[in-house]
Amino acid sequence: MREEWKDFESGAWTSEVNVRDFIEKNYKSYNGDESFLCGVTKKTKEVWARCEELLKEELKKHVLDIDTEHMSSIDGYEAGYIDKENEVIVGLQTDAPLKRIVNPYGGIRMVYQELDAYGYKLDSTVDQYFNEFRKTHNQGVFDAYNEEIRKARHVGLLTGLPDAYGRGRIIGDYRRVALYGIDYLMEAKKADWDHLIGPMTNDLIQLREDVSMQYRALDSIKKMASRYGFDISQPAKNAKEAVQWTYFAYLASVKENNGAAMSLGRVDDFFDIYIERDFKNGVLTEEEAQELIDQFVIKLRLVRHLRTPDYDELFSGDPTWVTCSLAGITESKRSKVTKTSFRILHTLTNLDPAPEPNMTVLWSEELPEAFKKYCARMSIETDSIQYENDDVMRHLYGDDYAIACCVSAMRVGRDMQFFGARCNLAKALLYAINGGVDEMKGDKVLDVPAITDEVLDYDKVKNAYFSVLEKVAGIYSDAMNVIHYMHDKYAYEAGQMALHDTHVRRLMAYGVAGLSVATDSLSAIKYARVKPVRNEDGISIDFEVEGDFPKYGNDDDRVDDIAKEVLDKFYKELCKHKPYRDAEPTLSVLTITSNVVYGTKTGATPDGRKAGVAFAPGANPMHERDASGALASLNSVAKLKYAECCRDGISNTFSIVPSTLGSTKEEQVENLVSVLDGYFVQGAHHLNVNVLNRETLEDAMENPSKYPLLTIRVSGYAVRFNRLTRAQQEEVIARTFHGKM
Amino acid sequence: MREEWKDFESGAWTSEVNVRDFIEKNYKSYNGDESFLCGVTKKTKEVWARCEELLKEELKKHVLDIDTEHMSSIDGYEAGYIDKENEVIVGLQTDAPLKRIVNPYGGIRMVYQELDAYGYKLDSTVDQYFNEFRKTHNQGVFDAYNEEIRKARHVGLLTGLPDAYGRGRIIGDYRRVALYGIDYLMEAKKADWDHLIGPMTNDLIQLREDVSMQYRALDSIKKMASRYGFDISQPAKNAKEAVQWTYFAYLASVKENNGAAMSLGRVDDFFDIYIERDFKNGVLTEEEAQELIDQFVIKLRLVRHLRTPDYDELFSGDPTWVTCSLAGITESKRSKVTKTSFRILHTLTNLDPAPEPNMTVLWSEELPEAFKKYCARMSIETDSIQYENDDVMRHLYGDDYAIACCVSAMRVGRDMQFFGARCNLAKALLYAINGGVDEMKGDKVLDVPAITDEVLDYDKVKNAYFSVLEKVAGIYSDAMNVIHYMHDKYAYEAGQMALHDTHVRRLMAYGVAGLSVATDSLSAIKYARVKPVRNEDGISIDFEVEGDFPKYGNDDDRVDDIAKEVLDKFYKELCKHKPYRDAEPTLSVLTITSNVVYGTKTGATPDGRKAGVAFAPGANPMHERDASGALASLNSVAKLKYAECCRDGISNTFSIVPSTLGSTKEEQVENLVSVLDGYFVQGAHHLNVNVLNRETLEDAMENPSKYPLLTIRVSGYAVRFNRLTRAQQEEVIARTFHGKM
Repeated sequence: MREEWKDFESGAWTSEVNVRDFIEKNYKSYNGDESFLCGVTKKTKEVWARCEELLKEELKKHVLDIDTEHMSSIDGYEAGYIDKENEVIVGLQTDAPLKRIVNPYGGIRMVYQELDAYGYKLDSTVDQYFNEFRKTHNQGVFDAYNEEIRKARHVGLLTGLPDAYGRGRIIGDYRRVALYGIDYLMEAKKADWDHLIGPMTNDLIQLREDVSMQYRALDSIKKMASRYGFDISQPAKNAKEAVQWTYFAYLASVKENNGAAMSLGRVDDFFDIYIERDFKNGVLTEEEAQELIDQFVIKLRLVRHLRTPDYDELFSGDPTWVTCSLAGITESKRSKVTKTSFRILHTLTNLDPAPEPNMTVLWSEELPEAFKKYCARMSIETDSIQYENDDVMRHLYGDDYAIACCVSAMRVGRDMQFFGARCNLAKALLYAINGGVDEMKGDKVLDVPAITDEVLDYDKVKNAYFSVLEKVAGIYSDAMNVIHYMHDKYAYEAGQMALHDTHVRRLMAYGVAGLSVATDSLSAIKYARVKPVRNEDGISIDFEVEGDFPKYGNDDDRVDDIAKEVLDKFYKELCKHKPYRDAEPTLSVLTITSNVVYGTKTGATPDGRKAGVAFAPGANPMHERDASGALASLNSVAKLKYAECCRDGISNTFSIVPSTLGSTKEEQVENLVSVLDGYFVQGAHHLNVNVLNRETLEDAMENPSKYPLLTIRVSGYAVRFNRLTRAQQEEVIARTFHGKM
Repeated sequence: MREEWKDFESGAWTSEVNVRDFIEKNYKSYNGDESFLCGVTKKTKEVWARCEELLKEELKKHVLDIDTEHMSSIDGYEAGYIDKENEVIVGLQTDAPLKRIVNPYGGIRMVYQELDAYGYKLDSTVDQYFNEFRKTHNQGVFDAYNEEIRKARHVGLLTGLPDAYGRGRIIGDYRRVALYGIDYLMEAKKADWDHLIGPMTNDLIQLREDVSMQYRALDSIKKMASRYGFDISQPAKNAKEAVQWTYFAYLASVKENNGAAMSLGRVDDFFDIYIERDFKNGVLTEEEAQELIDQFVIKLRLVRHLRTPDYDELFSGDPTWVTCSLAGITESKRSKVTKTSFRILHTLTNLDPAPEPNMTVLWSEELPEAFKKYCARMSIETDSIQYENDDVMRHLYGDDYAIACCVSAMRVGRDMQFFGARCNLAKALLYAINGGVDEMKGDKVLDVPAITDEVLDYDKVKNAYFSVLEKVAGIYSDAMNVIHYMHDKYAYEAGQMALHDTHVRRLMAYGVAGLSVATDSLSAIKYARVKPVRNEDGISIDFEVEGDFPKYGNDDDRVDDIAKEVLDKFYKELCKHKPYRDAEPTLSVLTITSNVVYGTKTGATPDGRKAGVAFAPGANPMHERDASGALASLNSVAKLKYAECCRDGISNTFSIVPSTLGSTKEEQVENLVSVLDGYFVQGAHHLNVNVLNRETLEDAMENPSKYPLLTIRVSGYAVRFNRLTRAQQEEVIARTFHGKM
């Protein structure tokens, strides 16, 4: 046992890189309540006060500052501080807080748009030589995309593909740096490299090169830390170092990459082990422990990426998805709730409610009651927490997984994801009816026959739809293969992948949007009488619906089964194609806030939805159609099969009126716990919880200054309400606010 | 038919890119003699005089100048001239003659060595940003090489691998630019790209990206030409434009790449068609035609690459292998000799004998006698020509192939080669005896058992040798796969590949050195009594040979069969491995001048050769061992099977004393023609011909200033004798000078 590991119980982790085993052997469950928690320290108060000033200034300018003299890299920036003498945990992306990095590796055209939008200009020498010497991911992708993909992308059948900036959604096992120190990790990578033998196929060559780059990236992380006066070559010796080392590792990832979601993983049990040891050794107080966590969280809240105005329209409020997974239980059914799980959530109190880090509770029936109640209380008070079902994910991902972005589970350091955004299922249905012609742009996108019937026939439409889905799956698979081939080639995340096992499992993460619209449309065709209104080109521009039909979100199998069948079909079709690097196909039902833009780009649908009207987010029932109460709505979503076909997650965003939950805070807390238990016990996957009144949001929309801190879960992330676009605010307000159980 | 194609006979070439068909339909054989040839024009004289001054200055300084402000690219240099008003054909690699390009894409470390050697320094900004933004081929290779490859490379078992600079040996079909103009070629590439459909596998993605890059490279060639005031978007309208357009295309290749061999391909019949048309139209005289060719050849003579002193030691005299293939016959047995074949060889008279372009006559029994005699006369007078057997190559490569480098045949624009230098067969034999331990460095390179017998047993040694060859083939294949994967990734020759068919055939060009040493060693073990002299580590450092044994080079099947068996075995083993991009394995027996360094790095061998003694070059018998006369020597080499296992060429360098050939020039000419006919009719592949006395070379070594222009064929290239290293001069002198037939 190394000196730094004194007092830890040994195990497999002492002779191999295995953080899970370290945690398993050393963490201590905590079943008590939140009464032990401390308030904020003076130092933290000072640091956070300075941050608040900067954040206010940033809000005014949209972007506080940009470093236009360097291109993104792990060790390319001088050390930066917020308030050096009060900072307990240090490290910034650039040399100043909220000063953003220029990352051109995913695509330089986007960089120009970004700089232009904020009145900046790239240093001309950097610009000249970058363009002369370096090709980007984006350029590579468009060199290989075929006509089919370009069309599908242009009309918005496939959208949000990471083909113009970093793909993100990769979670390094940042804890490894704290537990082992960089030098050991470098040696381990060198040993892996030496053992990668066999005939030099393209796959082996690529992997060997990857590992070489990982090795050098580790060295860069070490050098970057040394700019702040820390030698992270050896393991962390105490809680402060454990937090600091872990943060440096995470920091490296957000210096190197600008993926939409740069998630943290899970650190609660890991940090807790160090804190408990320090407590035992009498070198740390509860107040100091909370200070470490608060200051760590402050740093996570300052993570920024440079985005285009277009991007902001899709995902407003500048989300970074620093998703922080908490709690869950072990494979042997021990609660993984520690005092540090509480401490992390407590930052929502000690600092403010805030969207980042993206607080994600891995919910299990078996979590301690006190923790469940604490979570529920924090949800009611802050609307800043999302919940995901540990009891379904644990079977697939073990007990040391974390969530990337909103709902994407991965074993930390053992899985990585090829992010793939999503396909618009509602638009695909219109293509089945309109013979592959886009209803908004008029382009012929797919070579399929049109349906010319006066009244739509369910079997005919369904068959046509399924054959459209077959074709779309092929195009989608092709696009993903191109994207991830090029991303590996031109923007490989060496620093993050260095904190993964060398033989990593890869997940090809497909996604869908518009599930409820497609489902309700098919239900309408089946159970009501739907007549297309066609324009002179024979394209259906509207639909007349006669009679009623069952709607998804009311716990009605007649329609809920359609949703299941559509997902099942699409996933099976996706599985027929060979993914890049033998990745395993997964599927998510998730839109984040892009459901608004999807709606804008999609014509009228057979469910009676008019052209341009926003979709419901993720797997949500359409706004106000889930009229049978909160539980019926949840039950419908819970029927979608996570393990069978949606292993990348099924997102549900749920707003309930406080009074529906109960008349007292205590009653509300208990009822919210029951709602969560009841939802997840059915095998449901995810829930964003908002407990609020529509009126509050309506007032906040008109009087933003009254609600500067009002935070809500939109879909997959939390956001300050006043940073949403007007269209998004309106869509959030239009959602169902469950007023009855 | 386009206006530019007026008077040409149409064919497949008019509706697709097909230069071969254009030639087939339009060229005119010439069966006459050289009497029509003209002397040098005033303009050419002026230009060449200026070049001679510059060349003298260069010889003194080794390198005349280097552009340290730019990195290699097709269109990154201002126009440059030698003597603008007298230049009939224009275009230089940089903005001044003999000013060399810095090409870091293959490897930047080599660039530093090169610049350092000549007292230059890279512009610091260019240096900084290149290193920040760009990874090189060399860095990629070493990120993937395994321990086995690194060892095999370190000890010199595998040598000369193109892992630190451009691979070369690719011949663009430069004629396409003249025949079609750039715009048509761009359209054709775009059409190809549109038709590259199917599931997006890595292979398809890679090819689509390649074609995109080719398309853009064509545009760069056009822009580069426009710097010289030429619009090459449309086809050439006359002979001058045909030569100029073709030269621009070739020039782009030597601006973009620095491979050892940047060969020209074949242009004699192609240019001749334009010249004949201009003659018919009365717009060109013979003198002007010769002027075009002379000035074109001057440009080829000025091609330079920046090399390290190490490289110069291997291949001294600054060779660039601007190999220019001439003559041959068509598949329908029509002679491809045109007046322009004469005109090109005539530059050796009009200017000077000179090593470049590397004059390569594709010999066929059926070539017109007058041309055969003219070649023989030029060989006798200049020692600047190599001959390759069209009658064996045509069956494999059709009738529009050309030679890259020394002996590598490729269909122009339809094949490309993955260059792979060579394996030291003599060293491999020592490994079989010494249990895989390197006899010079003591490193354990291969895991094979040692032979500990006092007297070597043939069967035992042969079996051990063959199992060493099996292992070496695996390592060699691995190295080649890594090299060409990385070269495509980091230093793709987009400009050259743009002048190839999209669906190009790829040849994986393996090679061997030390064939005669390995062969004679096995013969000694079989027919004489060979006792290893072992050092304290049991490594054989010398061999005692008792008794005589048959030696390769004397037309003795007992030993010549061993050479055949060794090649056959090694080639079969190489074929067992899967090459990168489904290339077809080929093998060459070729050392160029590296036979000297191979010798230096190889211990004593069982044939009685002492440690450090130079090998014979290529497939040559060992110096002076081929004592049975010129014809017996040639017969031995002719037995090696080109088509079966050495489709990348079998190089033989042959020196004969003038008086052996005859007492008069006429007799010598006739006899040399007979020697060539007799050699090639047996299926032999290649012959470098020198007709000279040893005494001349000895005198030239001591008195270089007496022989400023003395040019000889060394092995695979011609060189000014006074530019060889002393060791190479000595080796050349030690070779057999056949004094009897």
